[in-house]
Amino acid sequence: MKLLALDSSGLVASAAVMEDDTLIAEYTINHKKTHSQTLLPMLDEIKHLIDLDIKTIDAVAVAAGPGSFTGLRIGSATAKGIALARNIPIIPVPTVDALAYNLYGTEKIICPIMDARRNQVYTGLYTFESVQETAVPDTLVSLLPQCALDIVEICEKINALGRAVVFLGDGVPVYQQQIKNYMKMPYHFAPASCNRQRAASVAALGACLYAKGVYQTAAEHAPEYLRQSQAERERNESKNHKV
Amino acid sequence: MKLLALDSSGLVASAAVMEDDTLIAEYTINHKKTHSQTLLPMLDEIKHLIDLDIKTIDAVAVAAGPGSFTGLRIGSATAKGIALARNIPIIPVPTVDALAYNLYGTEKIICPIMDARRNQVYTGLYTFESVQETAVPDTLVSLLPQCALDIVEICEKINALGRAVVFLGDGVPVYQQQIKNYMKMPYHFAPASCNRQRAASVAALGACLYAKGVYQTAAEHAPEYLRQSQAERERNESKNHKV
Repeated sequence: MKLLALDSSGLVASAAVMEDDTLIAEYTINHKKTHSQTLLPMLDEIKHLIDLDIKTIDAVAVAAGPGSFTGLRIGSATAKGIALARNIPIIPVPTVDALAYNLYGTEKIICPIMDARRNQVYTGLYTFESVQETAVPDTLVSLLPQCALDIVEICEKINALGRAVVFLGDGVPVYQQQIKNYMKMPYHFAPASCNRQRAASVAALGACLYAKGVYQTAAEHAPEYLRQSQAERERNESKNHKV
Repeated sequence: MKLLALDSSGLVASAAVMEDDTLIAEYTINHKKTHSQTLLPMLDEIKHLIDLDIKTIDAVAVAAGPGSFTGLRIGSATAKGIALARNIPIIPVPTVDALAYNLYGTEKIICPIMDARRNQVYTGLYTFESVQETAVPDTLVSLLPQCALDIVEICEKINALGRAVVFLGDGVPVYQQQIKNYMKMPYHFAPASCNRQRAASVAALGACLYAKGVYQTAAEHAPEYLRQSQAERERNESKNHKV
């Protein structure tokens, strides 16, 4: 099975092509350009370098939220365009789960934190469990599904679990002082090689989800924002104000 | 500190730029083209997309062997060219160590296996140890430094350690039947997102090595082949034959 994977949920733009157990290409950029300037040119560049015929792609896995609203829309719109044109399914991969999948094999608690502004993070708690069966990868297990939380609340939830934790994500540089203040358990920060979004993780986790029947049509697909946008919040506040 | 990292030790060609704790760009291809066709165009492509001024690079980390002889020469020649032109150091990163670094945080035994032909693999045994100090990454510890071994020998060494193991690398599809036959401990195979060479791992591990003073000048740098090339073997055999 050949998968195209995209992640533009945060500051990172990343595209990958995976065939069965092999990553054929991955291209990741964390630069100030907007995803509308980078994602499609990156995909086009990969396409040329690996002589990719888009007709051979069986499904598109996309980081389906939470994340930057504009970033999610660019990723989902790209995925929908390709999936619609080719009549292939979209695999919506929860963004925070995909970030946790970067730390494949870690038995500590994995806590991705994406800066969601207003002192909140998009986060969740995960670990990898060994499966009985040999010769296959370990399984990502969610202890707290992805959600929007205050940074203090997530630290308290980890303290309550009483286990060491690895933090990763663009929330780390923003909230490291608060983590230091509130964490009672040992904590570590993942190194640069695996501390931000990777389309390869979206692809590998996407393949697991596809095997469980988690996929949808291009028409069905919509990003999962988890929170209201600023425009929606302001409209509701103004409505309430008028009433 | 800004690092350029290259890995062309196997079938994969990979280039990355890392600045301190942030991966700015990574581009990885596992395709039938030769590295002389891919590595420099990939680097040029990254350079344009992230507006990279080569003058801002502080060091070049390169997967310094073992691996494909031609691949290593292309990687080292590229690193030497840039380091010489810019008068910056080269960080020689052991290829097998960098592969192990893909599985950051794993407390199982990590066993990278690169197909070295003639029933041998380039391999080593590793694990990650938590450091006392919080807020920093765990440390990669080598239990068996990289070497060329028969696949049966490395399985026996893992069995003797009596711990579960994760295999990764291009040796996995080649030797999985023999692994099944000889392994007595539980074993797993890493997923596609982290089972082949990544320049990001070369960069992250390279930064750790640089901090320990492991770097050299462009003139000093040469790849570590670990074995004689086929041409050298045949020359020696022919010499012995003549004697």
